[in-house]
Amino acid sequence: MASNPDRQHDHTQHIALVGAGTIGLSFAALHLTANPSARLAVYDTRPDLEDYIASHLPGYISSCAHGSGAAPSNGGNDSTTENHLSRLRIATSLSDAVSNADFIQEQGPETASFKQSLWPQIERHALATAIFWSSTSGIPASTQAASMSDPSRLTVLHPYNPPHMMPLLELVPSPATSQTTLDRTNAYWRKLGRAPALVRKETPGFVANRLAFALLREAFTLVADGVISVSDLDQVVTQSMGPRWAVAGPFQSYHAGGGEGGLEAFMRKIGGTVQECWSAGDEARGRLGGLDVGGEGDGGEWLKRVCGECEASYGIVDTRGRDERLQGVLDAAKERRQKER
Amino acid sequence: MASNPDRQHDHTQHIALVGAGTIGLSFAALHLTANPSARLAVYDTRPDLEDYIASHLPGYISSCAHGSGAAPSNGGNDSTTENHLSRLRIATSLSDAVSNADFIQEQGPETASFKQSLWPQIERHALATAIFWSSTSGIPASTQAASMSDPSRLTVLHPYNPPHMMPLLELVPSPATSQTTLDRTNAYWRKLGRAPALVRKETPGFVANRLAFALLREAFTLVADGVISVSDLDQVVTQSMGPRWAVAGPFQSYHAGGGEGGLEAFMRKIGGTVQECWSAGDEARGRLGGLDVGGEGDGGEWLKRVCGECEASYGIVDTRGRDERLQGVLDAAKERRQKER
Repeated sequence: MASNPDRQHDHTQHIALVGAGTIGLSFAALHLTANPSARLAVYDTRPDLEDYIASHLPGYISSCAHGSGAAPSNGGNDSTTENHLSRLRIATSLSDAVSNADFIQEQGPETASFKQSLWPQIERHALATAIFWSSTSGIPASTQAASMSDPSRLTVLHPYNPPHMMPLLELVPSPATSQTTLDRTNAYWRKLGRAPALVRKETPGFVANRLAFALLREAFTLVADGVISVSDLDQVVTQSMGPRWAVAGPFQSYHAGGGEGGLEAFMRKIGGTVQECWSAGDEARGRLGGLDVGGEGDGGEWLKRVCGECEASYGIVDTRGRDERLQGVLDAAKERRQKER
Repeated sequence: MASNPDRQHDHTQHIALVGAGTIGLSFAALHLTANPSARLAVYDTRPDLEDYIASHLPGYISSCAHGSGAAPSNGGNDSTTENHLSRLRIATSLSDAVSNADFIQEQGPETASFKQSLWPQIERHALATAIFWSSTSGIPASTQAASMSDPSRLTVLHPYNPPHMMPLLELVPSPATSQTTLDRTNAYWRKLGRAPALVRKETPGFVANRLAFALLREAFTLVADGVISVSDLDQVVTQSMGPRWAVAGPFQSYHAGGGEGGLEAFMRKIGGTVQECWSAGDEARGRLGGLDVGGEGDGGEWLKRVCGECEASYGIVDTRGRDERLQGVLDAAKERRQKER
């Protein structure tokens, strides 16, 4: 196989994972199963790290088996969990983890101070060519880089849970992030069958959460207003826009809905209805007293009521069954897409 | 086979479709392929009705073939389009269409005056036991029923496009709609593998459009604000919440995300982030001048810009390819769900 342009000595890609909680292990499973060239070093200060990895990682790895997202050009995958695990080692220190790494990915505590003190330590030990990724869901790279000597190598790479299943990665650079960092990040993840999406401005919530929570706000409003039950609302979504948006996003869907005139024709035709829906939501929230969820997530009586209905409808969710269905949907959406090419 | 409790003479269900545009023919395909007991009478004033049906309906019928949604208890389906079409007749008048019908489904012009004059005419000719459905996307049953002598038989039954593929049906009764009407409507559509969801109040946009357009508003905001491109935003949705919401709705997903504490624990943990996302969207819309799409759908410069980007990204969308992927996703979500039972 040709030598890796990123490294001179061999084809192997060395990945350091800093922070081995749920997200860290999910990413570990993804690197191992979708990238046969990956060797992982995992660092975490938790005392039971070895046991934790041994008891949780195999589960993630086996749920990658059906649809790892590995591009065929990556060659054959090792088929057993043991083989995957043989390419992972537990690092004895932060410097041990990062000193040989091509890519360093952190999913540590979600505080600015932690990340601001972490990156300069990593900079001291990392290769000059290493690229830095933060899995944060909210702390911008420009904030994290406050004490770095070279912030051009750092970008936020925000996954959608769980990363070993969901293809999306929000790529949110700071103004200082270099094009090389973006290019190498894109190249790495596309090869693993992932879908990086560029977020051009450091915006609260990035994009995925902004979109999902906008729908959630309307969902809260409709249930709090007595329009529909929690479970019927979920059914509305799973039986209509969910599957639709698994194959075409909202812009493409409404663009198609406008026929030859596209989104512009669509909006010309039903803009009034769209505006009426927006106004109805705003009106209901005003009438219901704002539906604020505040800093503590305590929106008062209405939130308790909706949460209680949710608990009564679902109890403890069988996430294994749901994830199996999810994988089926992801495979179906992808297979068809590949057939079209 | 046992006699149908709805009718005394035989098992056949007679359906009258009033209005044979895109929605009407899509529903025709659904009744014919998913309900072997259905006999259809189609009425429309368009002069080329016979040609229109002959040229468009077979396409809808064949795209039902992979996943008609018919419950196994419905017995074997006729396999050929010709056999399906043999159970459809073109009615010579409104009274001819409805006089023998168990269910009368209208998808005529979207004006209150049309529907208000239609239902009393239908009442004059329909069986006393017939149930009336309106496919309207916005005119409440209570408005439509203004001149009816018995409004208890009428309910809105709003499909998600295209109805022959999408399982969702929003069932939106007026305060006068009877429980019998709701029960028989539910029973009919569940037998066809559809998913009726009860909307308890006549609300602008009902529920599906309220939810989808809330996400669309945030999508417009993010693109107009320069945060992300149209095609990257679509990718965010298709690679994360789309497939997730094809298998579990937003409430169930976030309820699962809260672990044993459910939605309440989830909101306690990340309510601050949720609120921050809501506020960021409101702030951006304020800064960008409201992002009103008005009665004409003309939101000014920003809407033109987003529509232009959409056109540049997608041109004419290949809806056939998209619908094939959509059917694959619907089948995958359903197969797994059935396996779990």
